[in-house]
Amino acid sequence: LSLLGPLFRWDDVQESFSDRACLQAMLDFEAALARAEAQVGVIPASAASMIESTCAVHRFDGAALARESANAGNLVIPLIRQLTAQVREQDAEAARFVHWGATSQDAIDTGLVLQLRAALDVIEGELDRLADALAALASEHRATPITGRTWMQHAVPTTFGLKAAGWLDAILRHRERFDELRHRALVLQLGGAVGTLAALGAKAGEVAAALAEDLRLPLPDLAWHSHRDRIAEVATTFGLLAGSLGKIARDLALHSQTEVAELSEPVAEGRGGSSTMPHKQNPVAAAVVLAAAARAPGLVATMLGAMIQEDERGLGGWHAEWETLPELVGLTAGALHHLAETMAGLRVDPARMAANLEATRGLVFAEAVQMALAEKAGRAAAQRLLEAACRRSQAEGRHLREVLADDPTVGRHVTPEELERLLDPHRYIGAADALVERVLARHAAVRAKARGEAHP
Amino acid sequence: LSLLGPLFRWDDVQESFSDRACLQAMLDFEAALARAEAQVGVIPASAASMIESTCAVHRFDGAALARESANAGNLVIPLIRQLTAQVREQDAEAARFVHWGATSQDAIDTGLVLQLRAALDVIEGELDRLADALAALASEHRATPITGRTWMQHAVPTTFGLKAAGWLDAILRHRERFDELRHRALVLQLGGAVGTLAALGAKAGEVAAALAEDLRLPLPDLAWHSHRDRIAEVATTFGLLAGSLGKIARDLALHSQTEVAELSEPVAEGRGGSSTMPHKQNPVAAAVVLAAAARAPGLVATMLGAMIQEDERGLGGWHAEWETLPELVGLTAGALHHLAETMAGLRVDPARMAANLEATRGLVFAEAVQMALAEKAGRAAAQRLLEAACRRSQAEGRHLREVLADDPTVGRHVTPEELERLLDPHRYIGAADALVERVLARHAAVRAKARGEAHP
Amino acid sequence: LSLLGPLFRWDDVQESFSDRACLQAMLDFEAALARAEAQVGVIPASAASMIESTCAVHRFDGAALARESANAGNLVIPLIRQLTAQVREQDAEAARFVHWGATSQDAIDTGLVLQLRAALDVIEGELDRLADALAALASEHRATPITGRTWMQHAVPTTFGLKAAGWLDAILRHRERFDELRHRALVLQLGGAVGTLAALGAKAGEVAAALAEDLRLPLPDLAWHSHRDRIAEVATTFGLLAGSLGKIARDLALHSQTEVAELSEPVAEGRGGSSTMPHKQNPVAAAVVLAAAARAPGLVATMLGAMIQEDERGLGGWHAEWETLPELVGLTAGALHHLAETMAGLRVDPARMAANLEATRGLVFAEAVQMALAEKAGRAAAQRLLEAACRRSQAEGRHLREVLADDPTVGRHVTPEELERLLDPHRYIGAADALVERVLARHAAVRAKARGEAHP
Amino acid sequence: LSLLGPLFRWDDVQESFSDRACLQAMLDFEAALARAEAQVGVIPASAASMIESTCAVHRFDGAALARESANAGNLVIPLIRQLTAQVREQDAEAARFVHWGATSQDAIDTGLVLQLRAALDVIEGELDRLADALAALASEHRATPITGRTWMQHAVPTTFGLKAAGWLDAILRHRERFDELRHRALVLQLGGAVGTLAALGAKAGEVAAALAEDLRLPLPDLAWHSHRDRIAEVATTFGLLAGSLGKIARDLALHSQTEVAELSEPVAEGRGGSSTMPHKQNPVAAAVVLAAAARAPGLVATMLGAMIQEDERGLGGWHAEWETLPELVGLTAGALHHLAETMAGLRVDPARMAANLEATRGLVFAEAVQMALAEKAGRAAAQRLLEAACRRSQAEGRHLREVLADDPTVGRHVTPEELERLLDPHRYIGAADALVERVLARHAAVRAKARGEAHP
Repeated sequence: LSLLGPLFRWDDVQESFSDRACLQAMLDFEAALARAEAQVGVIPASAASMIESTCAVHRFDGAALARESANAGNLVIPLIRQLTAQVREQDAEAARFVHWGATSQDAIDTGLVLQLRAALDVIEGELDRLADALAALASEHRATPITGRTWMQHAVPTTFGLKAAGWLDAILRHRERFDELRHRALVLQLGGAVGTLAALGAKAGEVAAALAEDLRLPLPDLAWHSHRDRIAEVATTFGLLAGSLGKIARDLALHSQTEVAELSEPVAEGRGGSSTMPHKQNPVAAAVVLAAAARAPGLVATMLGAMIQEDERGLGGWHAEWETLPELVGLTAGALHHLAETMAGLRVDPARMAANLEATRGLVFAEAVQMALAEKAGRAAAQRLLEAACRRSQAEGRHLREVLADDPTVGRHVTPEELERLLDPHRYIGAADALVERVLARHAAVRAKARGEAHP
Repeated sequence: LSLLGPLFRWDDVQESFSDRACLQAMLDFEAALARAEAQVGVIPASAASMIESTCAVHRFDGAALARESANAGNLVIPLIRQLTAQVREQDAEAARFVHWGATSQDAIDTGLVLQLRAALDVIEGELDRLADALAALASEHRATPITGRTWMQHAVPTTFGLKAAGWLDAILRHRERFDELRHRALVLQLGGAVGTLAALGAKAGEVAAALAEDLRLPLPDLAWHSHRDRIAEVATTFGLLAGSLGKIARDLALHSQTEVAELSEPVAEGRGGSSTMPHKQNPVAAAVVLAAAARAPGLVATMLGAMIQEDERGLGGWHAEWETLPELVGLTAGALHHLAETMAGLRVDPARMAANLEATRGLVFAEAVQMALAEKAGRAAAQRLLEAACRRSQAEGRHLREVLADDPTVGRHVTPEELERLLDPHRYIGAADALVERVLARHAAVRAKARGEAHP
Repeated sequence: LSLLGPLFRWDDVQESFSDRACLQAMLDFEAALARAEAQVGVIPASAASMIESTCAVHRFDGAALARESANAGNLVIPLIRQLTAQVREQDAEAARFVHWGATSQDAIDTGLVLQLRAALDVIEGELDRLADALAALASEHRATPITGRTWMQHAVPTTFGLKAAGWLDAILRHRERFDELRHRALVLQLGGAVGTLAALGAKAGEVAAALAEDLRLPLPDLAWHSHRDRIAEVATTFGLLAGSLGKIARDLALHSQTEVAELSEPVAEGRGGSSTMPHKQNPVAAAVVLAAAARAPGLVATMLGAMIQEDERGLGGWHAEWETLPELVGLTAGALHHLAETMAGLRVDPARMAANLEATRGLVFAEAVQMALAEKAGRAAAQRLLEAACRRSQAEGRHLREVLADDPTVGRHVTPEELERLLDPHRYIGAADALVERVLARHAAVRAKARGEAHP
Repeated sequence: LSLLGPLFRWDDVQESFSDRACLQAMLDFEAALARAEAQVGVIPASAASMIESTCAVHRFDGAALARESANAGNLVIPLIRQLTAQVREQDAEAARFVHWGATSQDAIDTGLVLQLRAALDVIEGELDRLADALAALASEHRATPITGRTWMQHAVPTTFGLKAAGWLDAILRHRERFDELRHRALVLQLGGAVGTLAALGAKAGEVAAALAEDLRLPLPDLAWHSHRDRIAEVATTFGLLAGSLGKIARDLALHSQTEVAELSEPVAEGRGGSSTMPHKQNPVAAAVVLAAAARAPGLVATMLGAMIQEDERGLGGWHAEWETLPELVGLTAGALHHLAETMAGLRVDPARMAANLEATRGLVFAEAVQMALAEKAGRAAAQRLLEAACRRSQAEGRHLREVLADDPTVGRHVTPEELERLLDPHRYIGAADALVERVLARHAAVRAKARGEAHP
């Protein structure tokens, strides 16, 4: 549905899943297969060269392939037919060696792996970009007090830096997951009809090794035609990422509410307006990311359910993957991109954060006072006292400071100066600063390592 | 992903969900809104007429709308902007009344309802076509014995007619569900910004009624902007249908296995071949239908999860619906169409069915004998006797007939002629014939009623 | 996990899904089967009577049944064994006729239907109770202004009555769905091994009819052993309900936020407190309902995916239903009950609603002014003017009233008195009152009809 | 639903998720917290000692906790209340220090992590047991020919050893995933109310480190109260495993079909019988595993959807995890256990495998002949020739050997002896033997390493 593409997706990744890219990836497999077979002496070098030069997507009629695939059950059968015909026109001898010893699924699965690799290269860069934006927020706001909220209620103070560091912490874990994923998921598929490579005869192993080398893909121990945990793990990895992006977007949406107004998405001409309400600034990025996060779990479930594939190559389960995985990757990448953009330009309102901390007339500091009192009067007694004080503060509309100041038990244990300190948001933030530091250091290390790998 | 469109979808329904159809449906809403408002005197008739004539999809730049929707958060905001600009070029006065009193979601939701109505008209026809094909199979094969299978093991005989009647019975229930769905799901959406219709002033009720009448849609009591049970019920109804189609396709796949070979998909040139195995006839329709049935549950879950929408109009949940519902409808419709085609040309092999009934050397008749014996020797004793006989038959590779003939207890209660009758598949099919008749009669009644409604 | 039962579930419904109730429901089937078979002369009356008197759950060893079911693959096989043994101890002749002509699945599915019927009786009553509570809110607050919110941002005013009416409107649709569900889903299952009823011979039809009559269940045309759309529709109906409950709970959670504080759950001793924060009043009901709504979609997806059952009786899919459907029903019923309790005691703060309407310094009235201006200056010009005014109001921290009062264009078209009226929340609520009335009337009609049916 | 526990679950793992284990795990957290706080001097050693000795599950009233949790919203609030009361009865001073500085979620999440660790210890052992059973099958049957099947149709020969090696290959990957999972998922949760550890003052870091050490859990950089990717990754890892188990079970079910009969589950008294059909041997383990695999995707989707948690600690999403994750782990562990049992005793019928290879009268060797011919006559010509031969073989009911022997083109290129060799299943299995060897070597290495790690 291309009309909604720009809203939900990201061109840099969608490119990897275009019709064109899909066909070319399978053609890349066919070309590399021919090269590998020529290299180990299974087919003539001249045939490989002819096949290779024909494997260019612009030479193929996509619409005809699509139509014929409806009969054939997959795209490779008509693709091989077209490819063979084109090679034959130039060199009948070479045409004999097209797709030699492979099965349709070898081309489709390896093609998918090549597409995923291209997409992951782009996505990992964007993960870094999001991480950088979050690190900048964590660093800049490491001392900015904000109300900590639990169960969607004011709890006790924290810092906006720590909130941003929490987002960053999760993104760094996802970065690690993607690293681990590649060696297990992005591997060559080559098994022939049932995984024995029988059609390649004695040189099967050599062909497989040469092909893996050619495509720069790990060579797995076995073909994985009907063992889909590799490809399903791509799905779960993206599903996990979508969940974390959704969590950040929900925080963004909540903090952007009119009554809260602590954060807002970057303003741009024509962005987030309403068709009828002139004052609206809709959080478009939050909506897009939340939509992706709402869709990912169902798509992951489809991929997991589709793992139950029959025998050597399955019926239906495999077909269920074809559109589902690209959709999941595309939606999550779109959400990632929108969120990275937004976080890089996020508007933060520390004054509003400070004002909201006062919205409960000091109740968010109740725990601070309670902990201080508990050391002197015991946890249970302190809890009872504070619960009563909180109730009085709410009932009488008075600040907790005043209610506590009136309480003789409090007076016995806490001086007015101590009480004032207990009600200072900059003080009751515990280890927030050190915690932020820890995450920022990890982020810096990850980035340094990445730079090191890129420029060794 | 249009490359896979012909394999998984059906043009007659996809047409309703094309970019073009999506935009036109929203323009149809805008045109009808203007007409309705002119009719009750809220806007000038001349403005309505100018707006109406401009609401033709070919006048709009889809690519620009798509691009702008990424900023706006939906398609209607740029669409109204374009529409207003175009009307203004012709009549500045009329341009004031474009989209008068409505909100984006009114256009998007009503547009979706119009698209769904068009799709349902086509889909219900195809349900009838599938029902007809199944009824023909049930009728033709009402006396064709086949092995009944439970837990994927031979159980006792049934008829292929009853199996087809079971499929038909389910499809008839789905037909009924679609009938019930329309009045609840396919209704007008008109609420203005928050459902109060405030922007339409005192004539709001009249406008809504006139608009519903104009679009031939039921007028709901309230706008349902953030109450998505109507639209989610479309999803669950399709999800249920996809499940039944998948059940039929699984039966088809199982019966088409090389060792079973009782059914096979119609043969067509180039259909179901393999890229390397010359003898293969892959059950392509079964694969397509099973793939759709594997994907539908996740999509339904997305629609249900997306129901949790905030306040008067939600953030993220609504957006999650936009691609999900058309995908679910499109996939299910594609599966329905492929299955209807296949069932209309299904190849049935009664000889093979008869041969398979003998595959267990009579064991599938064990229950028949046991029930007959039970009447005389008691259920438990009969069960013990038959279990032993079955075990002996399997161990010795002898037909159950012979094992039982040797058994003195059997001999005491059952004559050889009775035993022979008990082992006749045409006899141990219980009420199969009457049951088939019952379903066929219901199908006939449904079809007669439909014809009556169409030509009253 | 019984520890969490009281939090997530509702005793009145859980009772229907207890181990005891599950076994008794299957025993009820067996007793009724015997009675029906005696009635039409298939088994002796004395046997039926002996079987019937033995079919009491307290006579059976549940732990032993559970253990043996692990080998047998279902509960009915050991249950029939125990039942037969117990009957035999009293009357060896009668023991021959236990479970006569039925298959395990007949007992399991019909037992489930009986459990579901009992649960639905209770659940429909609670739906009415929730509807009553919502109707009371809609009625009491039909003129209470509240900020309408879209995209989680202030939009334009509405009434809390209309919000409550929106919730009620959805619940009334669910009530209707449950009515429609019963005749299609809660029907007898009786087919024997493969659905032919062969083991019951010529009297099969009479037995089925008598059994349906005895259990007060509709008699379906065919057994539905592997056609699970009936039972899956129970799941989708509950899934839809869970979605609407979740929507209401999300609204409740959002309106209960510390900064919003327009609604709060009823206060009760010990309810919603924190283990460390004395001032917290956590919205426990919202959490429970949202948790149920988060879990329902996955459970519905499981039921839909499990529809793909093989042949006459399936392998695995059927088994996947056994715990999933009771869990879905139990969770949704628990959520319904918690929400009905909460809504019956909901605390509403109209003063806070009024205060929040002022939070944007008049911006929520921008549409009202724009619509009024548009009639005079055209929609596009009015929109531009208001957008600028809103931006100025935000930038300068001035009320929109003042900004507009300074604007000469506004002055040309609108008198100060008109402007004041346009900024009155009681006035810009459009048809809210009439819309609420419409839904309340439908609710009253539904309740009157229900009373009429109960006491005709 | 304990009645179905023995069928679907495994006692050794269920023990870790019992009510008792759940409470004790949280009490273990509280005891260790007190110890750690005493160690770094935050609370008195005597208090820690008193708290520790009270943290024994048998001292607590589970039913009361369950009841009270319905009001409190979680189990820890009443648990701390009971714990404090019990400590106070012995030492009022010590009671002040119960749960010092922690929040409910710290106890609940860490308790869950401890339960998961116990479960994983057991599950990894069972994964090894399944791997061993599969390795034995792969090794024993590495030269046993079996029909390779694709799209549920006979394709070309393979070996049963390679099929078993394919299963093993997937299980070895899952073993690796579980290894990687632990360091990321099974970590301490300690953050206090909003993750700042404010209530622990300056010694917060020391307490956290000591507690992690005490519980032998990694210390994460930050609390992860509302960042659920760690716990969701537990879910996806089990979801992936369930998919592979389901794939193996589906293969088992297909190979166990009456017409195929190549594999069957171990026979045991009373296992897999039917309530009415004496000859039935239902594949109970396959059913149980397929049921688990059908349920896992929906549960994983719930965990992913629940990741969208608000602010510092969420509302509803967290609650949705509580029953879902134990259910997913329990079901998958049950399936794993049933499958390990079954595979260790799997009955394999090589004679039947050989017979089924002949079921198509040589068609499964068509590819072998085609590849041989292609080298001489070209791929396209060979394909056309074989397609025609296959069609003739099917139409005339003659063995492909005879049809080919009659063909003059074949005669020109292939001698009768070569033709015979091409039709020998032992010969057209390609690299199967080497591939099996590769996987067995990896398995052996994994097992050796595990032994080495256990006894260094």
